[in-house]
Formats: sequence, C-alpha cells, structure tokens
Amino acid sequence: TGSQLAEADSQTEWTDVQKKIIPWKNSTPSLDMETAFQDRAAKLGKSNSRLIVVASLIDKPTNLGGLCRTSEIFGASALVVGSLHYIQDKQFQHLSVSAEQWLPLVEVKPSQLVDYLQQKKTEGYTIIGVEQTAKSFDLTEYCFPEKSLLLLGNEHEGIPANLIHHLDVCVEIPQQGIIRSLNVHVSGALLIWEYTRQQVIKQKQQQ
Amino acid sequence: TGSQLAEADSQTEWTDVQKKIIPWKNSTPSLDMETAFQDRAAKLGKSNSRLIVVASLIDKPTNLGGLCRTSEIFGASALVVGSLHYIQDKQFQHLSVSAEQWLPLVEVKPSQLVDYLQQKKTEGYTIIGVEQTAKSFDLTEYCFPEKSLLLLGNEHEGIPANLIHHLDVCVEIPQQGIIRSLNVHVSGALLIWEYTRQQVIKQKQQQ
Repeated sequence: TGSQLAEADSQTEWTDVQKKIIPWKNSTPSLDMETAFQDRAAKLGKSNSRLIVVASLIDKPTNLGGLCRTSEIFGASALVVGSLHYIQDKQFQHLSVSAEQWLPLVEVKPSQLVDYLQQKKTEGYTIIGVEQTAKSFDLTEYCFPEKSLLLLGNEHEGIPANLIHHLDVCVEIPQQGIIRSLNVHVSGALLIWEYTRQQVIKQKQQQ
Repeated sequence: TGSQLAEADSQTEWTDVQKKIIPWKNSTPSLDMETAFQDRAAKLGKSNSRLIVVASLIDKPTNLGGLCRTSEIFGASALVVGSLHYIQDKQFQHLSVSAEQWLPLVEVKPSQLVDYLQQKKTEGYTIIGVEQTAKSFDLTEYCFPEKSLLLLGNEHEGIPANLIHHLDVCVEIPQQGIIRSLNVHVSGALLIWEYTRQQVIKQKQQQ
C-alpha cells in the first residue's frame, strides 16, 4: 500500500497534520484535525465508526499503546488519553505499532473529564462506563447506540465515584475467574469488538 | 474468599497438585490433573467451559501470560503452551497475575501439534484456526460448537501451512486498520469472548 499512502499524503498535506496534536479546548482547530484524519483514512478505504474510547484514567503506557492499536484497527473515531506525553513513551510505541499515526488522539486530563463527558452528551453520545456496579448491564445483553463513548477505568481504582454519576450506563463483562479481573486493555478491546460486531450486523440487516 | 480457598485446598490436596505439571503424552495421569483442577474450581463456584486455547505457536511470554489470565477468567478448560518453562518467566508472571494456578496448562511442543490436534478431533473437538485465509469465516458469522479448540498463530508467521490442513475451520476477525493486525493476545481474547457470549446466550435460551 506504499503508493496509496503517498497519494493520500500528498492530498492532505499529511506532514503538517502529523506534527500537530489534538489538545481538547485548545485554540487549535481540533475538529479540522479530526476531519483531516478521517479524510485520509477514507481515501485509503478505511471507514470510521462513531465510537470514542476514553482512556484518560489509565496510567500504564503498555495498556494505552495496546488500546491505540486495537482502537485503530476497529476504526474508532478517537482515542482520548490523559496526556499526549504517552505517545513519546517507548512502551507505548512498542505496543501501538505506530497506530497513533492513523487514529486521532485527544488529550483530556482526568480533571477535565466531567466537562468533556458533558459536552459529548450534548453532541448525542451515550456515555458508557466499563465498570462492575449493582446496576451494570451484562455485556451479552447491552445494545450499543451508534454514537457510543466508552469510559475505561483506572487499572487499580476503576472509575471514581464522582464520574459514575455522569455516566448514562455501566456495562460489565461477565467473568468467572477466581482471582483477578480482566486487564483493562482486554476489557476495552472486548467492548470495542462488541460495538463493532453489533454495527456490522445492523449494516447487514439494512442491506 | 480466603476461607473458601483454604477449604478447597484441603479437599483436593492442592499442594500436591500444584507441584505437578501437565506434559502431554507423559506418564503423568494428566486427565486426573485436569479433573482435580476442575473439582477445585467447581467447589469455588467456577464453571468450566469445553474450550481449549492452544498457544503453542506463540513466542512472547507477555502474550502467553495475558492469554493465561484471559483464558482463566472466561473459564477455558485448558491453555496449551509450547513449553512449560514460560511459567517461570518474569514477564509471563507479571501478565498472568497468577492465573496459571487456576487454569490447567498443558505442554504441547510445536512439533507435536499435528498429533495433538488429531487426538482432540477424535475426542469430538472442532479445530478452529484463528487466521485470515481465503476460506475463513468472519467472526461475526461463526457459530462455535460447544467443544471448540482455538489454535492461535505465531506473532510473525501466523499458522504454518502444514497445520492449516489439519484445521476444521478458520475464523478471522474483520479488521479495518491501515497498518497492522491485532495483537495475538487480543485476537485470542476476542474469540474466547465470542465463544463465551454464544454459550451464555444458548444457556439462557434453554432455561
């Protein structure tokens, strides 16, 4: 796909785009950035979903790098991280295998999350926490809206109580292991997959 | 669950079981080992599926450790590895978070795989390769049999041609990423999840 890449690059002035980042609530026109990413992806035949993966609470670069790779592969529209400094981390890069070049990364610090989630709600997104609570839906029974935002919890503390209030729904993965729960990258991957699977089936039914 | 654990241990003489390993085709009564594992798990309220995850072709201890954790959490009946030496690896242990104590690990060297797959076929297992081929089923369309054996490919070479002939079916995960495919731990996790999801739905329908 070398020539395809070159063609897309020349059309979107990718080199300029590449040097930029997407800080949320910054003067940078982040919407244009996302559009540029999506235009480039579309030219390469890649379709983008309306799925946003929010990983701002995650600390480990390995988990973030893995989520970056997985989110890109399933065509998520953006991965939100707590700091864009992670992109420079060797472990992040090792796990992401350069997927960050093909997926908009948005920086939203944990302290900005409440505002960010509120804004996305007004844009029509359903805010879905990946967390075990008394009211959580079982992943085998949950039907994802087209505009879904997944909020993943911290490796140790999960999603803090003050954020739980701002969620529209919690979804949990039924687990029967004895000792520990799933790794957060794997949990995220399963929800991203389940969203994708449901969208694929809906699209087939509409044809 | 500390007292629960102690009770299960005293009932199954777990200390003895723990010191053993399950080399395939060895004089050790491996069937009894698996039974002991399952008895212990059942006493703790854990149900076991009829899913075998074969990771003998996988090289990286991180991927094997992650698969160990994920397989245990979804109640796979065994994880098959190319060498039991991996269990001593620090990276394996870091990722497995001691799940190997709750999941039968079976050693089948890559050179033994053809024989192993044949034997499992005679035991009624469907041999499912996780691989992109011209004849692969899309994961959104594949219906897993209750007795399923997943063969995962090597990180770089996938499943070698001589083994492809011994599979009953290949299943692929629809991916739209530009550069790389999914990490093998994530691919495995998605198939383990999809198997689990289908079993859960079947069980609900039967009730």
